[in-house]
Amino acid sequence: MSRQPGRKQENHKISRELFVLTYGALVAQLCKDYEKDEDVNICLDRMGYNIGIRLIDDFLARSAVKKCRSYSETADMIAQVAFKMYLGVTASVRCSSAAGNEFSLILDKNPLMDFVEELPAERASLCYCNLLCGVIRGALEMVHLAAEVTFLQDRLKGDAVTEIGIMFLRKAEDRKHKRN
Amino acid sequence: MSRQPGRKQENHKISRELFVLTYGALVAQLCKDYEKDEDVNICLDRMGYNIGIRLIDDFLARSAVKKCRSYSETADMIAQVAFKMYLGVTASVRCSSAAGNEFSLILDKNPLMDFVEELPAERASLCYCNLLCGVIRGALEMVHLAAEVTFLQDRLKGDAVTEIGIMFLRKAEDRKHKRN
Repeated sequence: MSRQPGRKQENHKISRELFVLTYGALVAQLCKDYEKDEDVNICLDRMGYNIGIRLIDDFLARSAVKKCRSYSETADMIAQVAFKMYLGVTASVRCSSAAGNEFSLILDKNPLMDFVEELPAERASLCYCNLLCGVIRGALEMVHLAAEVTFLQDRLKGDAVTEIGIMFLRKAEDRKHKRN
Repeated sequence: MSRQPGRKQENHKISRELFVLTYGALVAQLCKDYEKDEDVNICLDRMGYNIGIRLIDDFLARSAVKKCRSYSETADMIAQVAFKMYLGVTASVRCSSAAGNEFSLILDKNPLMDFVEELPAERASLCYCNLLCGVIRGALEMVHLAAEVTFLQDRLKGDAVTEIGIMFLRKAEDRKHKRN
């Protein structure tokens, strides 16, 4: 049985087009499965969360980054290093709270939407890329950072950019409060 | 509103890990949706087909390949150029029929199964990567080549390699015959 010719096959990159179309198939399937957009959004977030908690090990191993010392550094790490590594793009970061625990990641172009023109009228509340929010949330949780991650702007909904909001929650109780 | 800094963001590659985990989420969802493995396999193949018929334009544009003059050349093109471009690996090719219309693409390592150890006992008939067969079938159909594409060996089922069989169908009738 022949073996792989070493590193040559160890390419960690694949085509974005194949990913984007496969992701589209996933969203389409969920839209078949769930009538309500909200349920599709929750499902995408949950799937993303499960991906994030596994992806973080890969990220830490391959990026060899040091521990971030602030929320701001963490947001930059996601926007500049993680986005580049996993999606091939970078996002710009804006701090959006005086308390310093809320950040916006802004993408001029969202690579997950390459083939998507607009949402169908009956799916107006769909957060098409909600998987991304879940991935970020899951990965952060694995480095002991609780956060809420949501889309604040979405080009598919007519906004000029894609904006992902990350709110770091200082304590477990913060989250509970917020939810109740 | 700031614009993207030109080509820098036009990276066509993304991380394989993200793709593999997202693909895993898709298969898991279909396993929830369909009780029978056969139905999951059909669904994956159909999704792949729909991806293939869109991906072919991207492939022709980016590879700038000339028209293949034989089935053998076409099989090599898929194994060496398309697999490399979309999955970051190449496959070896073996002609498996005297008539010269059946080929095997053999992968020592299937990049879609990076995180999958084995199939659950109750999913023994699942063709986990069946999307790939559909992609190949769909893409071939768009260049007027009818083909049947199936997994002949699967590492997830204990085989030593992953082997994808492509049988080019000379006429529309061949396919009908074969199916009946």
